[in-house]
Amino acid sequence: MVKLGKLLVATFGVLLVLNGCLARQSLGVPPQLQNECNLDNLDVLQATETIKSEAGQIEYWDHNNPQLRCVGVSVARYVIEQGGLYLPTFFTSPKISYVVQGRGISGRVVPGCAETFMDSQPWEGQQGQQGQPWEGQQGQQGQPWEGQQGQQGQPWEGQGQQGQQGQRGQQGQQGQQGQQGQQGQQGQQGFRDMHQKVEHVRRGDVFANTPGSAHWIYNSGEQPLVIIALLDIANYQNQLDRNPRVFRLAGNNQQGGFGGSQQQQEQKNMWSGFDAQVIAQALKINVKLAQELQNQQDSRGNIVRVKGPFQVVRPPLRQPYESEEWRHPRSPQGNGLEETICSMRSHENIDDPARADVYKPNLGRVTSVNSYTLPILEYVRLSATRGVIQGNAMVLPKYNMNANEILYCTGGQGRIQVVNDNGQNVLDQQVQKGQLVVIPQGFAYVVQSHGNKFEWISFKTNENAMISTLAGRTSLLRALPLEVISNGFQISPEEARKIKFNTFETTLTRASGRQQQLIEEIVEA
Amino acid sequence: MVKLGKLLVATFGVLLVLNGCLARQSLGVPPQLQNECNLDNLDVLQATETIKSEAGQIEYWDHNNPQLRCVGVSVARYVIEQGGLYLPTFFTSPKISYVVQGRGISGRVVPGCAETFMDSQPWEGQQGQQGQPWEGQQGQQGQPWEGQQGQQGQPWEGQGQQGQQGQRGQQGQQGQQGQQGQQGQQGQQGFRDMHQKVEHVRRGDVFANTPGSAHWIYNSGEQPLVIIALLDIANYQNQLDRNPRVFRLAGNNQQGGFGGSQQQQEQKNMWSGFDAQVIAQALKINVKLAQELQNQQDSRGNIVRVKGPFQVVRPPLRQPYESEEWRHPRSPQGNGLEETICSMRSHENIDDPARADVYKPNLGRVTSVNSYTLPILEYVRLSATRGVIQGNAMVLPKYNMNANEILYCTGGQGRIQVVNDNGQNVLDQQVQKGQLVVIPQGFAYVVQSHGNKFEWISFKTNENAMISTLAGRTSLLRALPLEVISNGFQISPEEARKIKFNTFETTLTRASGRQQQLIEEIVEA
Amino acid sequence: MVKLGKLLVATFGVLLVLNGCLARQSLGVPPQLQNECNLDNLDVLQATETIKSEAGQIEYWDHNNPQLRCVGVSVARYVIEQGGLYLPTFFTSPKISYVVQGRGISGRVVPGCAETFMDSQPWEGQQGQQGQPWEGQQGQQGQPWEGQQGQQGQPWEGQGQQGQQGQRGQQGQQGQQGQQGQQGQQGQQGFRDMHQKVEHVRRGDVFANTPGSAHWIYNSGEQPLVIIALLDIANYQNQLDRNPRVFRLAGNNQQGGFGGSQQQQEQKNMWSGFDAQVIAQALKINVKLAQELQNQQDSRGNIVRVKGPFQVVRPPLRQPYESEEWRHPRSPQGNGLEETICSMRSHENIDDPARADVYKPNLGRVTSVNSYTLPILEYVRLSATRGVIQGNAMVLPKYNMNANEILYCTGGQGRIQVVNDNGQNVLDQQVQKGQLVVIPQGFAYVVQSHGNKFEWISFKTNENAMISTLAGRTSLLRALPLEVISNGFQISPEEARKIKFNTFETTLTRASGRQQQLIEEIVEA
Repeated sequence: MVKLGKLLVATFGVLLVLNGCLARQSLGVPPQLQNECNLDNLDVLQATETIKSEAGQIEYWDHNNPQLRCVGVSVARYVIEQGGLYLPTFFTSPKISYVVQGRGISGRVVPGCAETFMDSQPWEGQQGQQGQPWEGQQGQQGQPWEGQQGQQGQPWEGQGQQGQQGQRGQQGQQGQQGQQGQQGQQGQQGFRDMHQKVEHVRRGDVFANTPGSAHWIYNSGEQPLVIIALLDIANYQNQLDRNPRVFRLAGNNQQGGFGGSQQQQEQKNMWSGFDAQVIAQALKINVKLAQELQNQQDSRGNIVRVKGPFQVVRPPLRQPYESEEWRHPRSPQGNGLEETICSMRSHENIDDPARADVYKPNLGRVTSVNSYTLPILEYVRLSATRGVIQGNAMVLPKYNMNANEILYCTGGQGRIQVVNDNGQNVLDQQVQKGQLVVIPQGFAYVVQSHGNKFEWISFKTNENAMISTLAGRTSLLRALPLEVISNGFQISPEEARKIKFNTFETTLTRASGRQQQLIEEIVEA
Repeated sequence: MVKLGKLLVATFGVLLVLNGCLARQSLGVPPQLQNECNLDNLDVLQATETIKSEAGQIEYWDHNNPQLRCVGVSVARYVIEQGGLYLPTFFTSPKISYVVQGRGISGRVVPGCAETFMDSQPWEGQQGQQGQPWEGQQGQQGQPWEGQQGQQGQPWEGQGQQGQQGQRGQQGQQGQQGQQGQQGQQGQQGFRDMHQKVEHVRRGDVFANTPGSAHWIYNSGEQPLVIIALLDIANYQNQLDRNPRVFRLAGNNQQGGFGGSQQQQEQKNMWSGFDAQVIAQALKINVKLAQELQNQQDSRGNIVRVKGPFQVVRPPLRQPYESEEWRHPRSPQGNGLEETICSMRSHENIDDPARADVYKPNLGRVTSVNSYTLPILEYVRLSATRGVIQGNAMVLPKYNMNANEILYCTGGQGRIQVVNDNGQNVLDQQVQKGQLVVIPQGFAYVVQSHGNKFEWISFKTNENAMISTLAGRTSLLRALPLEVISNGFQISPEEARKIKFNTFETTLTRASGRQQQLIEEIVEA
Repeated sequence: MVKLGKLLVATFGVLLVLNGCLARQSLGVPPQLQNECNLDNLDVLQATETIKSEAGQIEYWDHNNPQLRCVGVSVARYVIEQGGLYLPTFFTSPKISYVVQGRGISGRVVPGCAETFMDSQPWEGQQGQQGQPWEGQQGQQGQPWEGQQGQQGQPWEGQGQQGQQGQRGQQGQQGQQGQQGQQGQQGQQGFRDMHQKVEHVRRGDVFANTPGSAHWIYNSGEQPLVIIALLDIANYQNQLDRNPRVFRLAGNNQQGGFGGSQQQQEQKNMWSGFDAQVIAQALKINVKLAQELQNQQDSRGNIVRVKGPFQVVRPPLRQPYESEEWRHPRSPQGNGLEETICSMRSHENIDDPARADVYKPNLGRVTSVNSYTLPILEYVRLSATRGVIQGNAMVLPKYNMNANEILYCTGGQGRIQVVNDNGQNVLDQQVQKGQLVVIPQGFAYVVQSHGNKFEWISFKTNENAMISTLAGRTSLLRALPLEVISNGFQISPEEARKIKFNTFETTLTRASGRQQQLIEEIVEA
């Protein structure tokens, strides 16, 4: 009884917290023309501006488009060429991203967390002996400061902990030495570099970035790395106005553009605005080097080409579709900040068919990620859904109860119909790869693949976006009494029964057009 | 000690959550004229537009009225005639309602919850034998699928659980059969209909609806069912602009009007915007029936007349004022979603004098419902207060600390005075049945019944709206030191003492005008 | 294991609640000119208007200034002369204040909390015998209604509880008597006054006020009491528009001004808007006294001079820097509301060097107060940081991740540089005592004292404002791999290592200009 009571209290508390308090706030008061939601006619949206960099480009959707303005988001597609590095950048709004193609290595800065990734050997000296230490081949010979590691079953995890200890020890020593004016000599103390966690990302990953947290991505694959990202500028965490604001730690945007608040104005990195003298004093470097930080003559943009191998410590690439085994977001011996926020997962793969939430062979699948599966989404109040349909499939008509949805087609072609609050059809178009559709809260819509394949990713402006389907076994028709249906539509009880019970499927159905309907008519006859 | 500690942690946590996080958000930034709050002069507001339907009408207050615009709400009064059915509708904003008159049967759709109300017998065959099974006379003969039920002390609760089991069994069978193409035959499998929970509502009930959750109401009484409802369009859950948006699953509004975002435009149901072909495929019905869903020629509006008896399964009507006995929002053997959100109470009666929070015989009573008494209010961030005063009563002057208040007079006549932040009287009027008064956050007001009866319902835009009274035993004058009062008003300590201590009552007092004052003067002398 | 699990659940829950849900909401949609954030050029701001009162003055910053409008705050400096009393006032927005100079006695009204401070003796009769009872010299002879108190180790705490009991007993008696028409006679029942908690505040205290909660302050020191306060009008708790609104329980503002929504209009107290007759009835006083409450001819303003001693019951002034010993925000035998909200601490001293979060002898110190150290900040979603630097100190460059910062210089002189999202320097000025700087979310800035002392208080619009530093041991440079740095800035690995590792300090460093740089160059050579 006591335990049950506790469970209930906990359940209830969590539900309240999750539902009541972490839901996304209202977009507020969009009073003048561009914020007022005129939703009588929606359009399929294309990216409108391309900012080219040395090793890739960023394509922006116009955030002043009335549809995007109404739902308060800014959308961009990042194309990072092979060997390209998207330089560290942060925003005042939360960001959610989906990897459409390719793979890469990603890092995000969480202030206050320790640098838990450490390369234990001077890279220059022992490189030939060990191959590529930054690729993470952690044999026993790689850890001169730790002898007994080989016995452990999970070498990477074990090393992670020891790495921290080692790093702390180092840091302590280094601290003492550092204050004796020997900061330049760490290379000889048994490590080449140490930094915060880096992660592999690959096609199908959703990852989230919190406001103010700088992040970078390197394309470590053999094809362009393509990422579609949504910046939620109407989010409660953005405390400025409804313009997207990009802050660059390195790199620049000589062209200007939608990525910044001031269009057509050169955008430089953060160091550029300080006196070089101040930078020199803060970083304890000479002024000449401080000036190099300001990158004044750099024309490479925000995505630069890495010369030679990308020498960053990271664990070996996990096997595709076996990634969950070693994932322990919180270890039992948790010891505070470092084991909680610092080790919080920031990405989740939702393109793996083995993890589908809805799955119909030969018809399609749908997978969602929300704050229950990826807790960081609770903080940014965003979620995402991945869908793939093929043949004559239909996603049963539905609407979003508590979120706006921004649907991006990652491949194929499909037909989308959207209906507004007046029962008007406000969109009925074929949607193709690279196109975007805004589906406002409450608007009903249906997605169909007429013999094609249609793949999409939907971002939703609620960490636990809820849908209500208009057809199928879990639909609202099933929740209504027959009497309400027959009176509402002035139809016979028998017809109401058909409407309510005929479709037994959920989410996806086969819409074979004529045939299905014929079968239906035959059955009725 | 440990237990106390836990209790404290829990208490504290709950307080923080309830106070800090679930409070309603700011209305944001209402910059242009109609959103800017010009509160130098308030008016008593009348409904400005009436939308007539076949079996009732909806009267709207103009949500563009500056006062309503400032506090971000839309208000409507629903009048549903005897036998009328308000068809399923949802909004993108939360709604709170109060039943002013009559009684009815209400249903709300919660996606993902099971259809726990089931009629176990083919209605056609056994009707005469059992009377009206949908009226819920659950004798033992009513449950052919369960034999041992009679022994249980709480027949309805017991049946509820068994009903679910039965339904699950049914559903399983039906699922298998359904996939064999026999969906049309459920009537012969031992049930006529199954649907989600329906509830009786009656005069004095407050009920809340969450965004995106469709709801319907049927007038099951002998007089018009009158409901006053507030849509909180400035709520954090509305992710669109500050226009109220009505989404109809059935019915329409040929006249157009304030209920929708586009005025003077016909408003149809959601099905109207889809191809009939798509509907037919989604519901696996023929196109002709699909077209009937679109109700294109229907002129009945949103409230339709039910022909014949309203055959919906429901428990027997509870006895007035004994309703609490069988109410267990969470049973001890709770098993997840179904026992939490799906069985969450959505209404509470606050017109029963037996439940008054403040009660003075012959003077009046005040009853509030907030998230402590009705947890769903935590999610919608709204609350309500019911008041009745008579004779020469006065509600002691007070103000709302953390909420706007929208007061609707349900009967009688009273005088209301409101004072703004500059100490100006911005309203001093007699308020009558059917009129609305907006009382902004922080504005002090006083309500008096000069020999009349005055009844009202107040909706507040905070799930735990707090008041601060200016007079009486719990007033802020009592909290202030005498020294502050005497210096603030330049009066003697003895006068300050009178101001602070003379009124010993809370909330309500008898304001007998001259007489009282004379007594006072005599006592002083 | 079970315990650890619980701990983790709790930790995680708390983190989610603290981070996700209690963070401050977006400022919403500031679309027209005055709300749109044009942040290409920032200014150092001075107070623009002074409202004089009898015993002090209030200086306002123009809340329509584009910078303050963008971040949604209103700022004022209160100067209360010796013996002055700031009369009870409340706002619809939360307020955070810092005591720049002096000391005082402060009270805040929390409706529903008991009057736990009680003067047990008629002041008139026994004054000479006991000295000043309101100064809190609570010897045993002071408690005629309680004999056994002396044995207890914590006299004040013990008395507090007994005071409540006593007060309740009194109240009960009084209630019976009061209803018999003897309200004027409490003075003879063994107490002179009882009121809610009052607190001593002094230089260095941060205190917070919740919306709707009236508060007053009396200058009990020997010099003017100076308070800088920020009203967060974009806060989720303000449900009206973005104008600051002042509600006065006593006092007025004959001059009008920024303190109210209507400029240049006389602002009266709340009683002024009611009929004197109504006030008389509500407070059970005669009309003449009711009219005195309206203070119509009062020209003293909001800060008045107290005649004679300020006779308010309060505990003895705590010893400076030993204040924590007797502070028990929640006692183990907590019994509900009275022991939680009613006894919640509302202030915290952050100017005591002994409590510095960052401390460097001869260089400076930085101390923050957030919802972890002062829980009421969780409710108002604000926090503060106090800083003092001297000599050639530099606060290392940093930015606010999730908050706007409003920095007020309390003394000395320093140079502040701010950089916007385009890498432009938008502010580079000497800031002096009494000046204000707005630092928007994400904007990098650096503070330097060139041989001077520079002292400031920063208010931040998030209850757990997070910073990210651009230099030093905990900076984001340390989190980035060397490879990212060297590629980002096109510099050699050795240069990248200098940038990353040279500065070992956090937050503060010595910026000795030329010398430091020379040393650096010598070490490099």
